[in-house]
Amino acid sequence: MNAVASVAERPLVIVGVGLIGASLALALKAAGHRGEIVGYSRSQSTLDSALELAVIDRAEPDLAVAARDAAMVILTTPMLAMPSILSTLAKSVPPDSVITDAGSVKSSFVAAARASFAGSIWRVVPGHPIAGREHSGVAAGEADLYRGRRVILTPLAESAADAVDAVRTLWEQCGAEVVNLPVERHDGLLAATSHLPHYAAFALVDMLAARPEREDIFRFAAGGFKDFTRVASSDPTMWRDIALCNRDAVICELDAYVNALTQLRERVAAGDGDALAAKFKRARDARNAWLGERQSQGKNT
Amino acid sequence: MNAVASVAERPLVIVGVGLIGASLALALKAAGHRGEIVGYSRSQSTLDSALELAVIDRAEPDLAVAARDAAMVILTTPMLAMPSILSTLAKSVPPDSVITDAGSVKSSFVAAARASFAGSIWRVVPGHPIAGREHSGVAAGEADLYRGRRVILTPLAESAADAVDAVRTLWEQCGAEVVNLPVERHDGLLAATSHLPHYAAFALVDMLAARPEREDIFRFAAGGFKDFTRVASSDPTMWRDIALCNRDAVICELDAYVNALTQLRERVAAGDGDALAAKFKRARDARNAWLGERQSQGKNT
Repeated sequence: MNAVASVAERPLVIVGVGLIGASLALALKAAGHRGEIVGYSRSQSTLDSALELAVIDRAEPDLAVAARDAAMVILTTPMLAMPSILSTLAKSVPPDSVITDAGSVKSSFVAAARASFAGSIWRVVPGHPIAGREHSGVAAGEADLYRGRRVILTPLAESAADAVDAVRTLWEQCGAEVVNLPVERHDGLLAATSHLPHYAAFALVDMLAARPEREDIFRFAAGGFKDFTRVASSDPTMWRDIALCNRDAVICELDAYVNALTQLRERVAAGDGDALAAKFKRARDARNAWLGERQSQGKNT
Repeated sequence: MNAVASVAERPLVIVGVGLIGASLALALKAAGHRGEIVGYSRSQSTLDSALELAVIDRAEPDLAVAARDAAMVILTTPMLAMPSILSTLAKSVPPDSVITDAGSVKSSFVAAARASFAGSIWRVVPGHPIAGREHSGVAAGEADLYRGRRVILTPLAESAADAVDAVRTLWEQCGAEVVNLPVERHDGLLAATSHLPHYAAFALVDMLAARPEREDIFRFAAGGFKDFTRVASSDPTMWRDIALCNRDAVICELDAYVNALTQLRERVAAGDGDALAAKFKRARDARNAWLGERQSQGKNT
């Protein structure tokens, strides 16, 4: 029991062939993966591009057909698309296939997976590669996207060891470092380090773009603005879904951030230069220490 | 009357030889500037480095001595250091020398300049190169820092045309595009496009670095976090001074941003996916349009 199928012998099915899915396929091919890689997308033009770019070996516009001989299925769509995909998969995949994902919120994926795979939850291994770009779509795929990056798995109490191993091996083949975290821990940490900066950047750009003087504002924006707002060029659907799926943690971080900005505002209003300088120095030192650590690990982006 | 001295014949004095001052000197030298470039700093080690790196031709640890035969003096120190420098300069510079600066806030510079140069305000030309790096210090200087960047001048009603021309020519030699703006307009625009993103990044990093779980937070931070927070590696003293000198505009932007974040938070709490997606799409489109415009102008950083 619990022996899982091998992606060397039966297809790996990538559901949603965008930046994340395409990069996974390209990374596996670059690493010498020989098993068949099948792509499913609701969009025929995405499938056409994925075939044309040799990202996938086979395109399958019908999810049930794509899934029927899968060794592993990985969901790389926006989060809100996942429950219905899981529901279809539960009726189509062979009993020994592994189900994983690349979603940015793990609690909502787990809830949807439990609803659809109640009888075989042992084969579900939630995952999340900590990698991305502000660009989206199949053409943005890069074979190196996961090299030197962390992939977080949040295995369930019921997850079978060989299912976890299969998913871990997949990501390690892409050059990633795989670490395990509890579901709640993942969602809380990512809300702070990834979700909050995205929403902060979206909010800033949207605020400035709505002003009558927006033309002059953008005219005099420079490099700092460009980097600060890079993540505001990210896919709106993906980030809508993350906000809704990780709602409590995102609200908690937005509240904390509003509080931090309000405190800073009070220091400015009070003309408290010492407190401001101390705050900025703490921030700079923390970031530089993090950057030094990161560089010493060979992470360059 | 109002004939100004020439930096081809008498020294250009750079007060505060950090990133901005050093880059100016290097850019002028690269452009074939032949006049003497004199550096003044309170720090002897800065002056030693500036000489060693051939950033300046002469180091002068006494500001009054540095200024006494200056054709032009440019202040590139943090903002709060400027009033006392201007006061010393007013007693030392020859009557035909031009006074300018590279400060990020123009109203406070103008107030200090009026206080010290009441009798010869015609020679004062406030300026601000829209360029920078998160790195600071003389060794961070780059000859290309101003190439393709905008330099904003905020001439006063009394500024002499040939003084303005002299400062404009200086920056154009560095490859910059020089534009004029009213003082208040400059300070308001920069509060939105530069000051706010810096304080937003400082606040975010300081908030996360103060948490018990900071180690895990930074461990799972990725490229988005890196770019969003780049400006939080900037010089704390410089940014303390900007907050204090542009206090009203900075407070106004922080209030607007807190309001924008609070609105976003309410949308998340309400689960209003349509409003969230629309907001993120507006932000992405605005940023991408700005980026496209910028790239078409050959600005690559």
